[in-house]
Amino acid sequence: MNNLDNIIAYVRQQMPERRWTHTLGVMETAVRLANRYGADPDKAHLAALLHDLAKYWPVERQREVVIREQLHTDMLEYDDQLLHSHVGAYVAKTQLGIEDEEVLDAIRYHTSGRVQMTLLDKVLCLADYIEPGRDFPGVDKIRELADHSLEEALVAGFDSTIQYLIKQGKKIYPLTINARNSLIDQIKGR
Amino acid sequence: MNNLDNIIAYVRQQMPERRWTHTLGVMETAVRLANRYGADPDKAHLAALLHDLAKYWPVERQREVVIREQLHTDMLEYDDQLLHSHVGAYVAKTQLGIEDEEVLDAIRYHTSGRVQMTLLDKVLCLADYIEPGRDFPGVDKIRELADHSLEEALVAGFDSTIQYLIKQGKKIYPLTINARNSLIDQIKGR
Repeated sequence: MNNLDNIIAYVRQQMPERRWTHTLGVMETAVRLANRYGADPDKAHLAALLHDLAKYWPVERQREVVIREQLHTDMLEYDDQLLHSHVGAYVAKTQLGIEDEEVLDAIRYHTSGRVQMTLLDKVLCLADYIEPGRDFPGVDKIRELADHSLEEALVAGFDSTIQYLIKQGKKIYPLTINARNSLIDQIKGR
Repeated sequence: MNNLDNIIAYVRQQMPERRWTHTLGVMETAVRLANRYGADPDKAHLAALLHDLAKYWPVERQREVVIREQLHTDMLEYDDQLLHSHVGAYVAKTQLGIEDEEVLDAIRYHTSGRVQMTLLDKVLCLADYIEPGRDFPGVDKIRELADHSLEEALVAGFDSTIQYLIKQGKKIYPLTINARNSLIDQIKGR
């Protein structure tokens, strides 16, 4: 299966209607950011379409794939929300025929971020924070920052995630801290 | 030099009077916490006495020691405030004749924390957050928590540090995240 309409039909089937609406918002925002910052808009569109395909799979099913395929198993000790990104990329590659590793990486790291994020990684991760349906403390500030710096907007996005985890008394996935540190180095030109 | 009066005189000479007042507060609080939670009060007293001995050394002098002695050189990419802990332990060992590695480790990790902190590590790190002279947002909450759980109080302490760094737009030292994650696992009995 590698026809866009088939992929859309498959993805839509994996999630409730409101998550599909979110996905459409991320697609629109990712294409806009790609055009603004010089990423490939077609890749941004495809990565956004696929990014949450496993989000509503039962957590146990997600964990099974992570363990069986040995996908960053360190995630298993952190928030379950991390799993769907790597599971989604795995399904996109093995079941939907997506071969572009740049697109697959953007899907893999759209929740956690990573050190030295690619332009496409940044576009998808930020689009996921600021698509029009999002409403959380600080989202408007992140939208403003997104007009002039991908990196500053992403740091603000990760800050909101870290503050949410602190408020909830939850552990923080170290890769997210490393991603944020790496972006701050980029902003400071180091 | 291994006589307590000589050590006190040496330490006091390394810092302005207000930092010596802070050190006295940490000594008092560390001994109280040690008695409360079953750590060795003499070790707590000694570690607290020594913990900030290099804090007011010029940063360049601290960096020189860290580089020459290869003391966690990854610190050099983060906040300068991290350096004095490892430099202090180095000086305590090589110039003041302190040989107790438990005391030295408590000094080394009193700013960053570490994975699997010892009881003495926890006592010193927490005492440094809550000694009577401290006044920062949330300190009273941490003092309350300190009455019933070292670990919960320390998580709240690290939370305040992380939130401060976020507010300042600074990088976060990964070991502090690992320390906080490790404490949350302990609290949850994992």
